[in-house]
Amino acid sequence: MTLSGPAAPPSARSVLARDKLMRTAERLYAERGFAGVSVRQISEAAGQRNNSAVQYHFESRDGLIRTILSHHTALVEKHRITMVEALRGQDTVSLEDHYGCLILPNVETYIEAGTPAWCARFFAQALVEPALRDYVVREHLDTPSLGLLGEIGAIRRDDIRPDLLARHGTMVRQLSVHAFAELEYDLANGRVDPARAEESWHTLGRDLITALCGLTTALLGPL
Amino acid sequence: MTLSGPAAPPSARSVLARDKLMRTAERLYAERGFAGVSVRQISEAAGQRNNSAVQYHFESRDGLIRTILSHHTALVEKHRITMVEALRGQDTVSLEDHYGCLILPNVETYIEAGTPAWCARFFAQALVEPALRDYVVREHLDTPSLGLLGEIGAIRRDDIRPDLLARHGTMVRQLSVHAFAELEYDLANGRVDPARAEESWHTLGRDLITALCGLTTALLGPL
Repeated sequence: MTLSGPAAPPSARSVLARDKLMRTAERLYAERGFAGVSVRQISEAAGQRNNSAVQYHFESRDGLIRTILSHHTALVEKHRITMVEALRGQDTVSLEDHYGCLILPNVETYIEAGTPAWCARFFAQALVEPALRDYVVREHLDTPSLGLLGEIGAIRRDDIRPDLLARHGTMVRQLSVHAFAELEYDLANGRVDPARAEESWHTLGRDLITALCGLTTALLGPL
Repeated sequence: MTLSGPAAPPSARSVLARDKLMRTAERLYAERGFAGVSVRQISEAAGQRNNSAVQYHFESRDGLIRTILSHHTALVEKHRITMVEALRGQDTVSLEDHYGCLILPNVETYIEAGTPAWCARFFAQALVEPALRDYVVREHLDTPSLGLLGEIGAIRRDDIRPDLLARHGTMVRQLSVHAFAELEYDLANGRVDPARAEESWHTLGRDLITALCGLTTALLGPL
């Protein structure tokens, strides 16, 4: 073992440095891919004189990436748990409501992130990165809100063949994660007018809910 | 400029080395990601004594990756052009036929590749890699067969709002590319029994066609 994290409560300066490293890494990875950026370049771009800053604050590149993912998941979860809790009182949950809970919390988070942002592309890259994909699915898509949605939502686990349910879940995840990344990319590159970012996110949200309802009914039958 | 490719027709030995480098790179990139493998490691794993073998045969890492993508596209195109040509004689093309032409040529190619294989994961990673994504979409998904399918297939370009058509196209591409990569990953890691690989590819093909028909009808309306 080499350096470990600070034992005392982190100083304000340390918190700031950590935050700067996370935002810098997210941006550089989103723009250049995991292959295009070294840990040293992240430290330098974040204004850290010490080249082992990433190691000091996050132990490793993967530790840094996981911390960024956790931060993103927490932002989405804050919106989603409120929406899913609100479904509890309803007698029946429609497929539209179900996918509203899945998609709209991301839409809100991406609108709050502003333009340009990097989190959607970062997330999409992590989901196809061999060393990270299982982690992303397990730790970051298995949140309390999604657990609750599985219990009270429109798609009941007991009625559907497990292998078909797993395939369906994978399709829903991949379609939404990569569609969000695509719009973020288009906004960052001016292919979609940044002045219309908020409207574009809302439209994508509606299109995704429509597409997912159609895909689900076709694949799983009427629910 | 440094080294350039050979001017004379390549020797048998050169062709073999080139092929070995391509197969090795595809495997290593699929397993470890673009960030996890250096060009030098590819040369070594391919048994090349010369560390600049990749540079000599492909000019650069990106040249190597593009050549692997072209090879994969050519294999799929061979199946697809035959299927799309066969639709020419039909009065009407159903949405099932349309997506059959899109999905089944990939299914055939992945079955031919055997188990374990690496091409689906390699392709999915290239599609989210910032430096490659536009190239993948432009050069490798705009093939003659897909152009012809756009003319005679079930989804006619003139009837649909261009922005909605573009969004739909992106969704179809992302859903299929990442679903193929997922099954290849599951087969390589024993989560799906390799002895049932062929059956699994056929099932995925059918599920994808079903899902895409539902998604398309929901998003674009009855066609």
